[in-house]
This record gives sequence, structure tokens and C-alpha cells, in this order.
Amino acid sequence: MNLPSKITICEVGLRDGLQNEAKILQTSEKLEIAKDLIDAGFKVIELGSFMSPKAVPQMADTDELYKQLNQVDEVELRALIANKKGVERAINCGCRKVKINVSASRGHNLANLNMTPEESVAGFKEIVDMAAEHGIEVSGSISMPFGSPWEGKIPLEDVQSIVEAYLNVGVSEISLSDASGMAVPNQVYEMCSKMKERYPQVKWWLHFHNTRGMAMANIIAAMQAGMTQFDSSFCGLGGCPFVPGAAGNVSSEDVVHMMDEMGIETGIDIVKLIELSKKVRQMVGHDTDSYILKAGRSKDLIKK
Amino acid sequence: MNLPSKITICEVGLRDGLQNEAKILQTSEKLEIAKDLIDAGFKVIELGSFMSPKAVPQMADTDELYKQLNQVDEVELRALIANKKGVERAINCGCRKVKINVSASRGHNLANLNMTPEESVAGFKEIVDMAAEHGIEVSGSISMPFGSPWEGKIPLEDVQSIVEAYLNVGVSEISLSDASGMAVPNQVYEMCSKMKERYPQVKWWLHFHNTRGMAMANIIAAMQAGMTQFDSSFCGLGGCPFVPGAAGNVSSEDVVHMMDEMGIETGIDIVKLIELSKKVRQMVGHDTDSYILKAGRSKDLIKK
Repeated sequence: MNLPSKITICEVGLRDGLQNEAKILQTSEKLEIAKDLIDAGFKVIELGSFMSPKAVPQMADTDELYKQLNQVDEVELRALIANKKGVERAINCGCRKVKINVSASRGHNLANLNMTPEESVAGFKEIVDMAAEHGIEVSGSISMPFGSPWEGKIPLEDVQSIVEAYLNVGVSEISLSDASGMAVPNQVYEMCSKMKERYPQVKWWLHFHNTRGMAMANIIAAMQAGMTQFDSSFCGLGGCPFVPGAAGNVSSEDVVHMMDEMGIETGIDIVKLIELSKKVRQMVGHDTDSYILKAGRSKDLIKK
Repeated sequence: MNLPSKITICEVGLRDGLQNEAKILQTSEKLEIAKDLIDAGFKVIELGSFMSPKAVPQMADTDELYKQLNQVDEVELRALIANKKGVERAINCGCRKVKINVSASRGHNLANLNMTPEESVAGFKEIVDMAAEHGIEVSGSISMPFGSPWEGKIPLEDVQSIVEAYLNVGVSEISLSDASGMAVPNQVYEMCSKMKERYPQVKWWLHFHNTRGMAMANIIAAMQAGMTQFDSSFCGLGGCPFVPGAAGNVSSEDVVHMMDEMGIETGIDIVKLIELSKKVRQMVGHDTDSYILKAGRSKDLIKK
């Protein structure tokens, strides 16, 4: 099947997962989760975001989290930002990696911001420059490159044009984010293959939601196209921004379990991850879309 | 990705799905479902089983279903059987296609029946002969070829040896059934490729459970290995025989939706299928593991 022998997983539950929860966790609970994630072997963690606390109260303590966690060797702790204010907060709390986002949906971007996606990305230049002055790395995300509620399928040329806008402002770490859960495996394979071939300088991430049950198949398709970096969320927390009650991010334990069983290295201790996800499930106080939390590992089924 | 342009789906909900339900549906309800399935375009349907009504009361009316449905042109209605009594019931009610099953797990088969899987299959000879005399086709299923709670991974040679036992008694339509939900994509690809190459005369079926969230990825992997026939169950009904509460068969509407969005023909009308699955969900009286029933089609999200 031509799969890589090793992949990297970024845990996004502390940001993309928890920001969707009605119950706001305590900073101490988030710190405990972050420490457990590091202990389980995660080397890339999305810790939170620097948005308006009014708009996203779940993430209001992201600055505090960075201060209390301090710099952890060999672990990248990234935060989502939307503007220069976000860079300022990153500087002040010791965050060394931020992520900016644009929608691949022209209709969406025009309706919300009266700008094309490329104009939005060009406007990020001052953010990137300011971050660079302070030694803060910037990555970029493109949401809904595989399909959008506004246009349906997004033409490959439109996505390429946004990638080029990112490269123009100096961002070469780019995430393709299927937040609407509309991506399908053959499309993922084709887009990833073309993107990798055309922009070999880019460090790619793939971010799949399991809204229509296709996230695991999409991950395999992306891996077959040579992709090796994936986002996922503990317990499968996250939800769908367009369909209340639908499934969200693909679950970290489901992804790590599949990789373990396929003999593909993730560097993550699945037993510790399952314990952590059970703890998070208790903290948020409801059942979640995680298969492994319900069924256990395949290995656990085998009679001794 | 080297995917086929067309696949065939066998709806197993009426058997593998409903036999796992506490509530026993009325014969009239099952008839309505069967007619709706045929109307939605299914050409292969597992209608029920001829087991002891005491052991599987949910399937006690399978004979009656066959009698009331009569022969439907170009639609194969198959039933699971365990012994000669099953063939007799098939003859008496007008069933033209039966399926027999053996476990790929030697430990399982030895513990339950004190026979190796090959001995069990050889014992099916009188069933196959009796069916043949009455013009009834027989297919064979191999459960847990990808992994079993008894041995873990099953060696390829063991599965080949069961396939050969089936061929020896004249059964050349064979299903590989991951009822324990332990299969992973690279393993599925490898086993399917080897099986197709070694036994080109076999008409293969793949039957995946979504116990650990991998069914859709396994279907894609099997398709890449050239497989084109898959079982699935409306609403994702079925459950896991080893883990109470875990997910069961992959959902028919999830599979058909993915194929539609990939441009792969199934011959099934997804809109009719979704309506049918909503009706079944109401009949069984509880929520189920179906993504499309929760999230709707990708197409439904697109603004007009």
C-alpha cells in the first residue's frame, strides 16, 4: 500500500476539542491533561488559542497555560491566533509557535470578511513579520480545501493559490483542514499527491473530522500520498461547526491504535493515551465519539 | 489509488443487524424493510437465517419472509444456515441461496466443536450436495480471518487452508468476515491481494465491522486490492459479539455515501436508503452508529 513507517500526530483536543464544550475546564485540569499528553509521548500539541475571551471563553486561560507549563524540551506547543493581538499574547506568555487560518471557501471568506482567501493571507504578513522578530514560528491552516458548504468541492487551483499566498508571506508549514467532514479518500489522495509534488518545500499537516465516518480512510489515503503529519483529538472531541450533534475530530486513540496495529510508529503510548482520554471524558461529563474508549484495543480482546 | 469504478453491496441488516436487537420486529415490518431495500436498488440482501428459533428468536420468521416476498427478479435473497435442517427449511420456503460459516480461529473452532475449521468445512459437504440437488446455491463465510480473540492475528496459510477446504466441497463464493473488528488496512490489502491472486476462481465478499473505527478504511484497502463486494448494515446495526455496547457492522448509508462522493457506482439510491434507515431506527427504538443519519450527506450541507 506504500505507507510510511512513521507518522507524527498533533493532539488538538485542548484547543479544537475543548473549545466546542459547554463546560469550561479549570486551568489546573488543562495543565494535568497537557502534562499527561507529554508523558504519553506527544511531541506536537495545540495548547489553546489567543482569541477574544468573550468569543471563545473556553480558551481564555491559554496565556496562563503557557506560563505554567513553561518551555518543554522537544515538545512543540502551538496556539491558534487570528491577528496581531494574538502575537502579542504569544510574546507575553512565552508561546513559541502560532497558527493562522483561512477558509478555502471563497464564498465563505467573501461573505464574512469581504476579502478573497488570498487577500486574507496577504494581510497576515504583518503578523508573520512581528512573530519572526520575536523568534515565534508561524504555521498556516487552510480550512475546507476538500469541500465547503458554500461551493461544494473546491477546485485544486483555488487551494494552490492559497498555498502560494502563504508561501509569499513566508509561511511554509501548512495544514489542510477538513472541518466540514466532506473529504473522501480518492480526492484526498489526489490533492495530497499534487500538493506534495508541486510544493516540496512545504511541511504539510492534515486535519480530518469524522463527521461522515471517513476520517480514518482519509488518513490512510493521505499517507499513501506521502503525508506523515496528522491532527487528532482525545475522545474524538470537537463537533461539527455546521451540523449540531455530528461527530467532530477523529479520535487520537482510534488513530494511534490503528497505527500500532499496522506497525506504523507514532511515538505515543496508547495505554497512557487511553487512560488520559478516559479522564478527559470524565472531565467533560459526557460520552464521546471514540471507538477505542468503547471497544478497547484489539490486543485487549486476545485471551491470555 | 487504483479503485474499481463499481462495487456491489449486500445489505445484511435484516440478519446480522436485527439478530442483535433485544426487540423482535414483526414479520410485516421486516417485509416492509425488504421491499424498501429492493426499491432502493439492493441486488443482494441477507434476509435472515434458518437457526433454531430458541437460539435466535429474532430470525424465527425467516421462512415466512421468503414465502411472502416470493422470488424477486434479479435480487438475490440469501439466508445463513448451520446444518442440513437449514437446507430443508430453505427448500420448503423457496429460498435459493444459503450461506454457511466457519471460524478462522482454530482455538475457537476446537473449543466449540472439537474440530479444526477444515474439518468443519469438510463436514459441510452433505449440506452443499443436498442444496445442489434442489438448485440452491451455497456460499461460505470465514469469520475472523484478520484476527481473533483466541489467537490474535491469523496466519495467511490458515485462511488459505480454509479457502481450499471450501473449494473442495464445491463452494467458490467466499466471504472474509471481520466480526471481531480487528482488521487493519495494510493487513486487509495484503490478505486480499494474495487471496485474489491465488484463488482467481473465487467470488469474494468482505464483511467489516466498525468496532474500532476502521471499517471504512478497510473497505478502501480491500478495493485497492481489487475487491468489489461488501456487506454492510442499515443504521450500522449489529454490535460486536465480544464487546457489549461496541459498534457493529459498518453502516450501509455511510458506505454508499462515501462511494457516491468518490464517484463509485453502487446502484443504490442513497436518499431512499437514508429514509429506510431512519424508519429502521424508529422500529428498533434507539440511536445507532450511523454517521450519515446524524450528519446528513455532504451534498445536503451545500447552500443552494
